Amino acid sequence: MSKEIPYKIYLEENELPRQWYNVRADMKNKPAPLLDPATHQPASLEMLSHVFCEELAKQELNVDDAYIDIPEEILSFYKMYRPAPLVRAYCLEKALGTPAKIYYKFEGNNTSGSHKLNSAIAQAYYAKKQGLKGVTTETGAGQWGTALSMACAYFGLDCKVFMVKVSYEQKPFRREVMRTYGANVTPSPSDTTAVGRKILEEFPGTTGSLGCAISEAVEAAVSHEGYRYVLGSVLNQVLLHQSVIGLESMAACDKYGIVPDVIIGCAGGGSNLGGLISPFMGRKLRGEADYQFIAVEPASCPSLTRGKYAYDFCDTGKVCPLAKMYTLGSGFIPSANHAGGLRYHGMSSTISQLYDDGLIEARSVEQTAVFEAAERFARIEGILPAPESSHAIRVAIDEALRCKETGEEKTILFGLTGTGYFDMVAYQKFNDGVMTDYIPTDDEIAASLAKLPKMD
Amino acid sequence: MSKEIPYKIYLEENELPRQWYNVRADMKNKPAPLLDPATHQPASLEMLSHVFCEELAKQELNVDDAYIDIPEEILSFYKMYRPAPLVRAYCLEKALGTPAKIYYKFEGNNTSGSHKLNSAIAQAYYAKKQGLKGVTTETGAGQWGTALSMACAYFGLDCKVFMVKVSYEQKPFRREVMRTYGANVTPSPSDTTAVGRKILEEFPGTTGSLGCAISEAVEAAVSHEGYRYVLGSVLNQVLLHQSVIGLESMAACDKYGIVPDVIIGCAGGGSNLGGLISPFMGRKLRGEADYQFIAVEPASCPSLTRGKYAYDFCDTGKVCPLAKMYTLGSGFIPSANHAGGLRYHGMSSTISQLYDDGLIEARSVEQTAVFEAAERFARIEGILPAPESSHAIRVAIDEALRCKETGEEKTILFGLTGTGYFDMVAYQKFNDGVMTDYIPTDDEIAASLAKLPKMD
Repeated sequence: MSKEIPYKIYLEENELPRQWYNVRADMKNKPAPLLDPATHQPASLEMLSHVFCEELAKQELNVDDAYIDIPEEILSFYKMYRPAPLVRAYCLEKALGTPAKIYYKFEGNNTSGSHKLNSAIAQAYYAKKQGLKGVTTETGAGQWGTALSMACAYFGLDCKVFMVKVSYEQKPFRREVMRTYGANVTPSPSDTTAVGRKILEEFPGTTGSLGCAISEAVEAAVSHEGYRYVLGSVLNQVLLHQSVIGLESMAACDKYGIVPDVIIGCAGGGSNLGGLISPFMGRKLRGEADYQFIAVEPASCPSLTRGKYAYDFCDTGKVCPLAKMYTLGSGFIPSANHAGGLRYHGMSSTISQLYDDGLIEARSVEQTAVFEAAERFARIEGILPAPESSHAIRVAIDEALRCKETGEEKTILFGLTGTGYFDMVAYQKFNDGVMTDYIPTDDEIAASLAKLPKMD
Repeated sequence: MSKEIPYKIYLEENELPRQWYNVRADMKNKPAPLLDPATHQPASLEMLSHVFCEELAKQELNVDDAYIDIPEEILSFYKMYRPAPLVRAYCLEKALGTPAKIYYKFEGNNTSGSHKLNSAIAQAYYAKKQGLKGVTTETGAGQWGTALSMACAYFGLDCKVFMVKVSYEQKPFRREVMRTYGANVTPSPSDTTAVGRKILEEFPGTTGSLGCAISEAVEAAVSHEGYRYVLGSVLNQVLLHQSVIGLESMAACDKYGIVPDVIIGCAGGGSNLGGLISPFMGRKLRGEADYQFIAVEPASCPSLTRGKYAYDFCDTGKVCPLAKMYTLGSGFIPSANHAGGLRYHGMSSTISQLYDDGLIEARSVEQTAVFEAAERFARIEGILPAPESSHAIRVAIDEALRCKETGEEKTILFGLTGTGYFDMVAYQKFNDGVMTDYIPTDDEIAASLAKLPKMD
């Protein structure tokens, strides 16, 4: 227990997890099932397999098996960029003058720049194993599209990415990274799909939306022989793959006798948060340990703190199954001045159930405060964080400063999901002092929630 | 010797080097001294100390001490982003079908995106220790400026960066990273210096050059109380700091019984190559081992393969001391179609002497071949490399393919100096099939060399 803690803990290869952990197996209240949008009956394996790879559809429905073997091919790929280091933020602690001990799990040391690769490679693997030609997806900020492009390049799969037109034009570098990995990147809405053509006809000159890109990607998958649609967050299968984050973190903590009191993650669709906390949550659910979990969301898109726990559409096109989740309504679109990701109207159904059961807390933070924390962190710890990750940094710093006041020597662990190298437009706004905050009014949220689907 | 080699070797903290290695101490033929441009006499400590921090000037002149202690404060900073992993390129070997074993030392896992941080933090430390207010420098592609900004933020030093105007405008993201770290970034030429004003008057509308930016940075240093000028490559002090790359690589090799046959690095000013090979070269110079060393330079800026070994100006403004080096002439400017760095007209005097002594080989490669290698590497090994680093990748792949022909099981080690996230304009050109090659004619090089300074 008294082993000296290095700045960065890298597990040895033989200490890396060989199974994913499925937190649903230990949950007394299981997440509500996905529903067929037409019949409102639980989505069957057969139904899901039209859209998703079969093995992934099975994982989506699996609430019983606590551990699922990671295939060897995925383990090999993980070894190219994992383990991710568990970092002791010695310099940040010193700069804050806090008695707290701060650790972060850094997932940004790969070319996709985030944790998204952990699930992208799994989804590409199962697509390849099923003998598919390729996969389709949508991307907004571009982290998921980049990760999927890398994974598809590795397995020689075709990758069709529908990129929200405004991002396609404003983030040409992200687009070029995907193209370098051989992906076919189409600005959405496009004339390559029926839904795209319809939208272009109705709204000529539109710059697109994530909802529209999802609809195009799903159409492209079901209308091309040998293709399936894949998604980078929200789904249970994604949380399962992302558990590698938490498993590595827990192994590193156990190795050095580190016992986190507070575990913090940013929450958009919930994949990073779910992945980081899952194994720790498992211990809590089994009564083996206790931790405080904090989900951090933007004040401009506050699905946990101000949303409703209800069945809703996962996409604005309303083509995907219904999910029960904390949601702001599938038509909710965060203010245009909101930078970066975490713009999803809903939340993973697993995270939603854990939150509803009081096992997770949630906080919302404003973006200027987030970028203040990001800049401070960059200067002290040397890593320029993604805007998404910086939500967790904000709350970690707040908690550490609270410890300074109370004198508590808490151990804080947060997820640093990625780097901000492709988010410099947002940083520039902050550097120039023109970044603002936006908090939706109660009326706006109520109007959006009024359009939730009517359930029986 | 039979220990299984992991994909990535991370040394433990207690295995990290605590001293830099100064290869000049083991060289029989020392690099030629810097000369005062006015008198052609060897530059004294006093003279150098007007421009550089005193401790750095001492390091510049030190040809005797083989090992120099790394100060504790620098060791602490190194621990934030080092060790850099020594990676076994299992996937690349498999894809090439080569019997060769390929390793690369990856220096890109930090926000500056390259090895430049290794020297930036050292130079900032000595500036702080000397009680200076700040430092000045120039930057072209921006890696050095970013690294220095990070280092100055850590020590609370002011950092004035003169950024070549065309880069300032075309690489706004690099600029914003520097600003996020608190640096003062000025497009060069500017009206903040006499030399800048003069150039602006003579050439209104000029987009600047590295030579002009150097002149402005040097003027800003000597004309501001409490400032010194710092440089990211070429100098002996920089090679000294960069020896941390080679020392870590050698420790990792020794730990696992890896014996490189060929060691490859890209060469612009020589800092990465010098840092990587120094300790191995030391063994070779002391007769303890033998290695083949290959310096890789762009065919568009071939200072080693087509330059002359002579005293020349280090900068186009001719304000710095004269250095004896392989040079294309200080007025040589690579074709505008050349992407990325490695544009320097000369070469580190240490590397030049070793090359002249036949201890290093040099190869020049064309940029489309370099980007082909870069794309292939990105897709197979998952890391999107910097254009500079990709020169080394090109030759490493060529060597591995040669082994495939001959059946030789050589062990190849190359330096992967950084990532290409801020070089997507070049990748886009390659993706679009509009990238071309340019090789200077003999006449062009002869014309440039005709302007070398006349020595007695």
